[in-house]
Amino acid sequence: MRASRFLIATAKEMPADAEVVSHRLMVRAGLVRQLAAGVYTWLPLGLRVLRRVEAVLREEMNRAGAQELSMPMVQPAELWRESRRWEEYGVELLRLKDRHERDFCLGPTHEEVITELARAEIRSYRQLPLSFYQIQSKFRDEIRPRFGVMRAREFVMKDAYSFHLDQASLQETYERMHEAYSAIFTRLGLEFRAVIADSGSIGGSTSHEFQVLAESGEDVIAFSDASDYAANIEMAEALAPAGERPAPGAAMEMLETPGCGTIDAVCEFLKLPKTRALKTLVVEGEEAGGDGAAGKSAAGAAEGGAGGANAKGGGRGDGGAKGGGEGAKGDGDAPPVVLILRGDHQLNPVKAAKLPGIASPLRFASEGAIRRHCGAGPGSLGPVGLDIPVIVDRAAAQAADFCCGANKDGHHFVNANWERDCPLRRVEDLRFAETGDPSPDGNGRLVIKRGIEVGHIFQLGAKYSEAMQATVLDETGRSRCMLMGCYGIGAGRVVAAAIEQHHDERGILWPPAMAPFQLAIVPLNMDRSKAVAERAESLYERLCAQAVETLLDDRAERPGVKFADMELIGIPHRIVVSERNLKEGKVEYQARADAEPTLVPQADIEAFLKERLAIGQ
Amino acid sequence: MRASRFLIATAKEMPADAEVVSHRLMVRAGLVRQLAAGVYTWLPLGLRVLRRVEAVLREEMNRAGAQELSMPMVQPAELWRESRRWEEYGVELLRLKDRHERDFCLGPTHEEVITELARAEIRSYRQLPLSFYQIQSKFRDEIRPRFGVMRAREFVMKDAYSFHLDQASLQETYERMHEAYSAIFTRLGLEFRAVIADSGSIGGSTSHEFQVLAESGEDVIAFSDASDYAANIEMAEALAPAGERPAPGAAMEMLETPGCGTIDAVCEFLKLPKTRALKTLVVEGEEAGGDGAAGKSAAGAAEGGAGGANAKGGGRGDGGAKGGGEGAKGDGDAPPVVLILRGDHQLNPVKAAKLPGIASPLRFASEGAIRRHCGAGPGSLGPVGLDIPVIVDRAAAQAADFCCGANKDGHHFVNANWERDCPLRRVEDLRFAETGDPSPDGNGRLVIKRGIEVGHIFQLGAKYSEAMQATVLDETGRSRCMLMGCYGIGAGRVVAAAIEQHHDERGILWPPAMAPFQLAIVPLNMDRSKAVAERAESLYERLCAQAVETLLDDRAERPGVKFADMELIGIPHRIVVSERNLKEGKVEYQARADAEPTLVPQADIEAFLKERLAIGQ
Repeated sequence: MRASRFLIATAKEMPADAEVVSHRLMVRAGLVRQLAAGVYTWLPLGLRVLRRVEAVLREEMNRAGAQELSMPMVQPAELWRESRRWEEYGVELLRLKDRHERDFCLGPTHEEVITELARAEIRSYRQLPLSFYQIQSKFRDEIRPRFGVMRAREFVMKDAYSFHLDQASLQETYERMHEAYSAIFTRLGLEFRAVIADSGSIGGSTSHEFQVLAESGEDVIAFSDASDYAANIEMAEALAPAGERPAPGAAMEMLETPGCGTIDAVCEFLKLPKTRALKTLVVEGEEAGGDGAAGKSAAGAAEGGAGGANAKGGGRGDGGAKGGGEGAKGDGDAPPVVLILRGDHQLNPVKAAKLPGIASPLRFASEGAIRRHCGAGPGSLGPVGLDIPVIVDRAAAQAADFCCGANKDGHHFVNANWERDCPLRRVEDLRFAETGDPSPDGNGRLVIKRGIEVGHIFQLGAKYSEAMQATVLDETGRSRCMLMGCYGIGAGRVVAAAIEQHHDERGILWPPAMAPFQLAIVPLNMDRSKAVAERAESLYERLCAQAVETLLDDRAERPGVKFADMELIGIPHRIVVSERNLKEGKVEYQARADAEPTLVPQADIEAFLKERLAIGQ
Repeated sequence: MRASRFLIATAKEMPADAEVVSHRLMVRAGLVRQLAAGVYTWLPLGLRVLRRVEAVLREEMNRAGAQELSMPMVQPAELWRESRRWEEYGVELLRLKDRHERDFCLGPTHEEVITELARAEIRSYRQLPLSFYQIQSKFRDEIRPRFGVMRAREFVMKDAYSFHLDQASLQETYERMHEAYSAIFTRLGLEFRAVIADSGSIGGSTSHEFQVLAESGEDVIAFSDASDYAANIEMAEALAPAGERPAPGAAMEMLETPGCGTIDAVCEFLKLPKTRALKTLVVEGEEAGGDGAAGKSAAGAAEGGAGGANAKGGGRGDGGAKGGGEGAKGDGDAPPVVLILRGDHQLNPVKAAKLPGIASPLRFASEGAIRRHCGAGPGSLGPVGLDIPVIVDRAAAQAADFCCGANKDGHHFVNANWERDCPLRRVEDLRFAETGDPSPDGNGRLVIKRGIEVGHIFQLGAKYSEAMQATVLDETGRSRCMLMGCYGIGAGRVVAAAIEQHHDERGILWPPAMAPFQLAIVPLNMDRSKAVAERAESLYERLCAQAVETLLDDRAERPGVKFADMELIGIPHRIVVSERNLKEGKVEYQARADAEPTLVPQADIEAFLKERLAIGQ
């Protein structure tokens, strides 16, 4: 490609709203342009990158036995009513009416449409298993689109769906997709982890996210430094500390702790390490009726599906990272449940909300309810003498001679002990895992890092096929609901995530599999030197003939502008043709990642590049 | 591909609403499924065809120097307000509001978005010319979607846009696109004509439609049997008959023609050929003010743009085909204009509406206005003695001793003559061209056929760049509006049009460039014969290794089902492997278009296929 005939839309200015480096670089390098909040045009340069990602997705999906199809973006409301998501999905589902006032929505994901197709076209168990995928634009009306294409409203996604007669078949395809996803992100040159994920209420029990490691990531993941274990922080199990709980020491004593409303204040006041103090939180229990459980499944349903790879539920990533004190304030008459954690640990609300007896999503009790049930305010609570259900975190359950609130405003106990001073009835995993915790698989210790979710695979089970009656006849002629899996990758997000992982102060460093061009030829003062022009042109022609994706920077720009642009754009290899070097029979080569250029004899340049490009690919 | 692992969704039933053969066959062969009116899923088999079309589009667009990009489907209203199409485009523009109640629409075409991009990114004349294209889903809320993907609401389109400093550059790119379009449809194996088209009020003067010839087409085109001349019937010039007008014969005479309200009735009653009678139509003239002209440009604006290739304005094709009597009934006080045509000719409303002095779109005068101005009802009008403007068609102007209404109810003149009995002041081309008319380019005679519009190219000129102020600096540093061209192809419609042209009673006959698979291998009773299974499998493996797109029909179906399916699907070449033939060391080959199969020795089959497939491609 000749740069003079190609839209090189590099820009010096930073977009004012760009919070992350990939957003800044995608705009500055001229890969995308915003048309409206969260709605982007992919410019020719950006589209070349996106197409390379799509090609890898397509190859690996085909290899995994999935068939490509293409479903509409505009979907009729009837199908969403069948699955009940017309009501359950929030305002992120953009609803619209056609000229006849019929209800439609813009597809944020395609479970309903594919299930409709499957129930019409798949009749017999002999046709199963079947997997379908598409690569296509989706729309989610995010309240706060940001990070450029990372959390856009209109975005390109690869979504796949599989259909099965039984769980064994679903499990087999799920594992095949897991392998395909690993192959995709490996081929694309990304450092990633496949992490155990919260499948929420999407229906199944099993779900994995594919997280690209990057400091700007919205998610927090925990993985072993010695094994394959990796989990979303919400799901990472926190084991009990090794060993037995120490025996009680001194007798329990009540102390005045005036104005100490937090663990920090109490420990500072009493000169205790936070590991010796327990914190007490009061949350709402599950209602007696079925309402609580129904709420549980409805709340998560809107989030799920193949679409998981692009847009996350509002504060989920952030909330998970910060832990503790989040959750809605309840003020109903729900029965309270007390949660006890060690002073240095943070409550994991996702884990807590999954426990029987606790409302989901997690809701903290109101101060009024707390005073009514515990006799004191939130800053002075503890397990001693309470007459309501108490759930104790595994680490807190190992504490001895601990400090805790006395359920009397402005007072705490010290040297309290389980069983001696208060019963220890129910111990659960309530906290976020932390760096250095033992890995739950028994191998190594946990590392906590931030990640960008680029893929998500789910076992949906019968959630959609039951709601929409997608059945097949089995071997005995009996009608059975198919089981489903769904598998999503945010293609645009992959591009952004790659930049987050691969950039320097001058611009992008593309992994070779994603680079828009493999090689840039930069002739200096081409208009003034016939030798430079001829040499650059002939090299360009020969490399094109060998199918090397080459950008010839034949623009009438100063050398400094060309160098800066090629570095910003991140083309992996660069040849500079200058009159000075040609006089010595040489051209200059530099890989984007190299610190210094290399002078290569003209005669050797093709052989040299052949080796470099092969190595690079 | 193994048919057992691929969704073969052939159906016996005809879709009840399918009016054209391509719609029936696309559903029956399992290429597409309707999700909602005018909204379709492309099944894996159909998508393979669509992707082959897209690949040809991409190659030829790249060759023509256009750069691929990808613009959003959801577009902000602000841009459409700038171009004034937010108001002018009818209800086919599907408008919607996001969660913040901001106005958006689903893109039916992308002139506004590309112009916004160009004005932001193109600054200097040195960057010009530039051409961009995309292949993407569009949405038009057609009042009556029909013919399957031929007139869908959501549809796949290739749209391209070019930007220029001057008309010479626009003309050059326009011609290059014209050539690219010809190359595309030729490669796809379609019989087509590039026809001079009505550019309506889209802005420019030049426009061509690419019409695939098919009896089911909604358009009517006229083309020479001896030259390249081809035009949409609305645009095909009707020359005056050769020779001079005969001299008047007998004296004019008024006859009673009771109850004869039509040309047919009058000619029947008077025993005259229709060529000897003139018909008189009264239409509304242009208002004195600027209103008429403004209405002219607004009316057409909504239709135009790269999108032209998919959806046509409601009755345009039909209206053009039937000619005559259409048009809205006016009842205002617009000044009337009389149009005179020969009795056997049909008024071309598009030609008429373009004439100075006539309202556009064409509106017929009300009966009240006719009586007020002419003194008689519509069935008894004629040019003799009228005191309002009269425009006479070229052929009617050559008539002598003609019959016409006497402007007195129930009376006609015979032996009327121009100049002798009434003045002949203004002669224009008012009628539809007909089969056998001389070609306007002087070579040969016109043939009239029906066509399906699959592509449309326009010179937009400065319509959008002026409205949206898309300017560049020219060589003198002066700011100038860019000139634009736009170029559309309906990719899905191309698939349907190919089927209209290439089918028989058993199913589709794909042009090789569009076939979903090149070759089908049909093993008979594979489950019972190990020899058949082995032979079919090994042939399949070897052809796949040679990159021949092969479908192995390994389904557990009866031979008759397999044959019928492969023929319905239209795979160009077929090998049948049966135990009987294997015993004689042979397999059976049949091209989809062949009447009879050929037995080929097993040892020769690959060489045989190589030759056949190469010929076929």
